[in-house]
Amino acid sequence: MANRRTVYFVSDRTGITAEMLGHSLITQFEGIDFKRVTLPFVDTIDKAHQVAERIRQTALQDGARPLVFSTFVKNEVREIIHIPEAHVVDFFEAFIEPLEAELKQESSHTVGKSHAIENFHEYNARIEAVNYALAHDDGIKPSDLSTADIVLVGVSRSGKTPTCLYLALQYGIKAANYPLTPDDFGQTGLPKPLQAFKHKLFGLTIVPERLAQIRAERKPDSRYASLDNCRFEVAEAEALYRNASIPHLNTTNKSIEELASTIVHKANLARRIY
Amino acid sequence: MANRRTVYFVSDRTGITAEMLGHSLITQFEGIDFKRVTLPFVDTIDKAHQVAERIRQTALQDGARPLVFSTFVKNEVREIIHIPEAHVVDFFEAFIEPLEAELKQESSHTVGKSHAIENFHEYNARIEAVNYALAHDDGIKPSDLSTADIVLVGVSRSGKTPTCLYLALQYGIKAANYPLTPDDFGQTGLPKPLQAFKHKLFGLTIVPERLAQIRAERKPDSRYASLDNCRFEVAEAEALYRNASIPHLNTTNKSIEELASTIVHKANLARRIY
Repeated sequence: MANRRTVYFVSDRTGITAEMLGHSLITQFEGIDFKRVTLPFVDTIDKAHQVAERIRQTALQDGARPLVFSTFVKNEVREIIHIPEAHVVDFFEAFIEPLEAELKQESSHTVGKSHAIENFHEYNARIEAVNYALAHDDGIKPSDLSTADIVLVGVSRSGKTPTCLYLALQYGIKAANYPLTPDDFGQTGLPKPLQAFKHKLFGLTIVPERLAQIRAERKPDSRYASLDNCRFEVAEAEALYRNASIPHLNTTNKSIEELASTIVHKANLARRIY
Repeated sequence: MANRRTVYFVSDRTGITAEMLGHSLITQFEGIDFKRVTLPFVDTIDKAHQVAERIRQTALQDGARPLVFSTFVKNEVREIIHIPEAHVVDFFEAFIEPLEAELKQESSHTVGKSHAIENFHEYNARIEAVNYALAHDDGIKPSDLSTADIVLVGVSRSGKTPTCLYLALQYGIKAANYPLTPDDFGQTGLPKPLQAFKHKLFGLTIVPERLAQIRAERKPDSRYASLDNCRFEVAEAEALYRNASIPHLNTTNKSIEELASTIVHKANLARRIY
């Protein structure tokens, strides 16, 4: 069938980079049913031959050339995967030679360098940020916010917790979060625990219909999940952001990656890790 | 100076893909001091001209062509960044046309497709996995492990928590963790809460010197962080893994990404999201 393709992400290391870039390429092609297979740690000649054979079999079964996205640092392994039965795209191969020419230096061809722990300091920054996010999730003590890089504010289930964790893991940023509850509404000004940290606040909002859907997964048929209540809470939260001039973002159609990188950009946060 | 280069990651969306692939390329070049700048959301002609001008200024200041890694879907924006004063690598440009030919279909040129929320089901799987990891972090009730996809086991500070969170965020996998404490050692067999879930266990271990260093960041000069105690705990944990035939992994020189993808691979876990 023309509308079905098998896609392999192959690497001599984790395959994360191959997956990410390959995925962002194939999502540009709508209407094709992609079957995705990740094969990490293909780091020997033997394993490479096995993978090449598997891809050949898939080509026969599918009646169409599989797509292969790879990030091989070792030439000898990469070449084995380069079979005519597949459409092979190796991300390193395409770019490393021009870079060597530009930088007037040979690349070190060190497998998996990019995800290796580069130094103890970076590792610590990351773990510290994760621990910070965990300790300041939905039950923050006011005094603690002084060490936060940013404080996400929003109603329950608007996406605060996963965004905080992603900011910690991906950027090493210390993100706390403060849940807005009905107690916080109908007052003038910011909730008391937040008043001293206005410059660190970033609001999340969400379409009420979507919020109701998310909340219903957790507590079906509850007042908490009812559309009326969701509409009320979202309207109050948005009024609070406007009145206090807090920058904010609608999370409805955004992935966690998009939310996190948008917040880093808009709040001009300094990342601690790469 | 020849040994210093500015690197720009530029995108009309989050820039995450450009950062990840660009980073994995430049780490292949040792001895060069790369100054990294991410410029996301460059999605208009005007913004593109500003970025191009900024890159030209950097080239003048540095006396060397900046490296520019980009992932532009829109041709008209991409072309503006393609200036002779920089070494520009656009990841989409290089691969999208050959893919169009292979798939006999034009790409949709939809900006940021890859990180957009693809469907509600995937979003839920991710959030559910994050909530699961949070609820089962270091204080698990035995009965709860029945719904875990995997249970990470290891001494305090061996890397369990960030790995569980990464498994949740990146793969939608429900990972619980069980901290091995001195109470668990010196007994025959597995700790009681784990006995019914042996097939789900995955052990983490770490070089004692590194563990002592990590623990000292948290509790300096404590018995907990002493090298003697770390040696004892690690030796006991490793004996437990061996005796119970639990697969395990040394976390010392691995990043969280590597740990997570290795566990997914070795434990043959099914990912819920892409």
